[in-house]
Amino acid sequence: MRYRDFLSLDYLPGPNDCLASFYVEPAVGVDIFEAAGAVASESSIGTWTESLCTLSTRIWEDLRARVCRIEGNTVTIAYPAALFEPGNIPQFLSSVAGNVFGMKAVENLRLNDIYLPPALVSGPGPAFGVAGVREVLGIKDRPLVGTIVKPKLGLTPKEQAEVVYEAFVGGVDIVKDDENLTSQSFSPFEERVKRCLEARARAEAATGEKKAYLPNVTGDTETMLRRAVMVKREGGRYVMVDIVTTGFAGLLSLRRADLGLVIHAHRAMYASFARNKRHGISMLVLAKLARLAGVDQLHIGTVVGKMEGDREEVLACHRALGNQTGAAPGAGSALPPQDWQGIKPVLAVASGGLHPGHVPDLVGIFGHDVLLQFGGGVHGHPKGTRAGAQAVREAVEAVVAGTSLAAAAESQEALRAALSCWGGM
Amino acid sequence: MRYRDFLSLDYLPGPNDCLASFYVEPAVGVDIFEAAGAVASESSIGTWTESLCTLSTRIWEDLRARVCRIEGNTVTIAYPAALFEPGNIPQFLSSVAGNVFGMKAVENLRLNDIYLPPALVSGPGPAFGVAGVREVLGIKDRPLVGTIVKPKLGLTPKEQAEVVYEAFVGGVDIVKDDENLTSQSFSPFEERVKRCLEARARAEAATGEKKAYLPNVTGDTETMLRRAVMVKREGGRYVMVDIVTTGFAGLLSLRRADLGLVIHAHRAMYASFARNKRHGISMLVLAKLARLAGVDQLHIGTVVGKMEGDREEVLACHRALGNQTGAAPGAGSALPPQDWQGIKPVLAVASGGLHPGHVPDLVGIFGHDVLLQFGGGVHGHPKGTRAGAQAVREAVEAVVAGTSLAAAAESQEALRAALSCWGGM
Repeated sequence: MRYRDFLSLDYLPGPNDCLASFYVEPAVGVDIFEAAGAVASESSIGTWTESLCTLSTRIWEDLRARVCRIEGNTVTIAYPAALFEPGNIPQFLSSVAGNVFGMKAVENLRLNDIYLPPALVSGPGPAFGVAGVREVLGIKDRPLVGTIVKPKLGLTPKEQAEVVYEAFVGGVDIVKDDENLTSQSFSPFEERVKRCLEARARAEAATGEKKAYLPNVTGDTETMLRRAVMVKREGGRYVMVDIVTTGFAGLLSLRRADLGLVIHAHRAMYASFARNKRHGISMLVLAKLARLAGVDQLHIGTVVGKMEGDREEVLACHRALGNQTGAAPGAGSALPPQDWQGIKPVLAVASGGLHPGHVPDLVGIFGHDVLLQFGGGVHGHPKGTRAGAQAVREAVEAVVAGTSLAAAAESQEALRAALSCWGGM
Repeated sequence: MRYRDFLSLDYLPGPNDCLASFYVEPAVGVDIFEAAGAVASESSIGTWTESLCTLSTRIWEDLRARVCRIEGNTVTIAYPAALFEPGNIPQFLSSVAGNVFGMKAVENLRLNDIYLPPALVSGPGPAFGVAGVREVLGIKDRPLVGTIVKPKLGLTPKEQAEVVYEAFVGGVDIVKDDENLTSQSFSPFEERVKRCLEARARAEAATGEKKAYLPNVTGDTETMLRRAVMVKREGGRYVMVDIVTTGFAGLLSLRRADLGLVIHAHRAMYASFARNKRHGISMLVLAKLARLAGVDQLHIGTVVGKMEGDREEVLACHRALGNQTGAAPGAGSALPPQDWQGIKPVLAVASGGLHPGHVPDLVGIFGHDVLLQFGGGVHGHPKGTRAGAQAVREAVEAVVAGTSLAAAAESQEALRAALSCWGGM
């Protein structure tokens, strides 16, 4: 069993094969065949020795991964479904995205895409999904609009509730905690939730619209579940969780607790492994696994704004979540499109450095199935949070109605001030 | 509030500050001051806008992170402890290792090291630690010796139990599942555990030594806990978990369940973010957080063998876990040594591509506080698993006794065959 024995370049993947597309950069002195074989070996049944007294022909035939295509540095590997425990996302990652990144045989290695056979598309998947979220908020077609309370940390629950109220009344549908706010001494979780949900009730009465406050339950599993139960009890509709720093074990537990709460997934830390195009794991893979695990909303990038993520990659994530994109899709992956077996689409979230001037571009890229989130782009408005929220809502309404921002700004003061401040007129 | 406002190069960190050392590579057109300020801003209370109607002087003074040192591309940032929820490792990562990696202001960014003030060294920490593990196995001083059942996947529980028995009788202390074996159709978890623990009992009777079988409980939190409880009920002493793919939420829950089982932590997937020296999160940071979370044993690399990880970094991890290193320590970090507040040391695990010929180097590097694991280096032995296990034990006993492998191999056939096969004579 040498690494090259895992090459089967004439192999046609079967209906029970899981596929993975890797960028493989061999180490010095190693060729692409050896390096690709090393990845297939380490991620299925192999080890570094040439023989193993414990390996049988049955295991070799039934369970080995096969390198079935090599095009330049793009390597497709086919894995028999039997290698995986259905529904166990950590186990899937430990196989396909585990030790391989640390092997000396590769200089760089990136898992770019995955395709799961029907046997492994074993949800739970989102409880709500795009349609469910629209129903919760009573928004039929337009993009959803949200804000993140800023500053990220430091407001007391009372101060935060006031910001939440102002933002809702200004016009946003959703107000969320920031990714690093959980339960610090300046803002104990329970008090914050109670006050912000009370602010939500007042704002709903004032506007006649449904609103959602998204408390961040990120923590160990028990703490997350305890806090989510408290949110439900207090009449909340949503929780938010940082899925990468929490991890899939905790996320799956939160989803399977089935509390009837929409799950908003923040991706903090994803760029530690996804940003480098030659090494790590792509955002697309994370997006597919998050859909499988059952988040209802997921941050996937903005194309414009303060965070990295090129247009093609963000659009690939948007499609993988099951959304209609605004922009035309690009060349796409080496892998077949995923059959989701009825698992619901996830609402894409664009967040990070956005302001109203970005809205035409954003709707052009994402279409209408997206939650557009503005943090500094709301609370940094010269007239404050309420006017900032009004400006983003006005921008979205204008673009959906086919009106230019400049035209809309003529009659709408909040929008005009935002565009003067940040551009986009 | 511009990014540069987060620079305080004359600031002397106080006793309540958390410190982080980053490698910062600014984006084109951005200088190191701007980039370092952006990291401090995004990971504490900042956003991209210059003003925020919601920011108060109190928050700015009490909670902002401060860039307190810049040396070349090495940037030290001081965070007030109040930014963090003690014990909430996901929240800590979402702050210090969250959005920052995706900011356009940096081209590359790596979190190299962290220092936690006493207020944040809030365990639970390991239940057993090095001394506890030695007591469980009755091994006073020498390095522990283990094997991973190979092939990684495919053996039936009955076949695996036979391999476990052979390895134990040959001389290893520990036999573990591989990182991608959980509960697949060819090896249902419960049946495997029962059979392997029964093999352990037979091997203990045959050898008069204590042995440990490490079943891999990686999965969602409930599944992990259910399986761990089953292991305890059946008389197991250990569980193993892939801490990165499972995530800290699940790991903390497993630790806090306090089942009286030693927790063996595999790091599969760590190299997706830790391998690149210019981007991501170092293994050292992961090792420190794993100790805080309370694993008893952790894979930290081999220096020699099939996996990446340079000597200096592996030694830094070994020291951070609280072990005496064999080799002399290098220059070390920009940060002060961690005060662990009585949190127990974690046993280092060296695993990946090892064979008996590596043992003198390994003991030279790690000293005696290490678990040396051999997979292919046991089951690939020309005479099979039992002889392979015998060879690694003989190698370790020889090195501890100050005998050269060549001399020991003269009278020890299993060791001689291993050295002939893989080198090291």
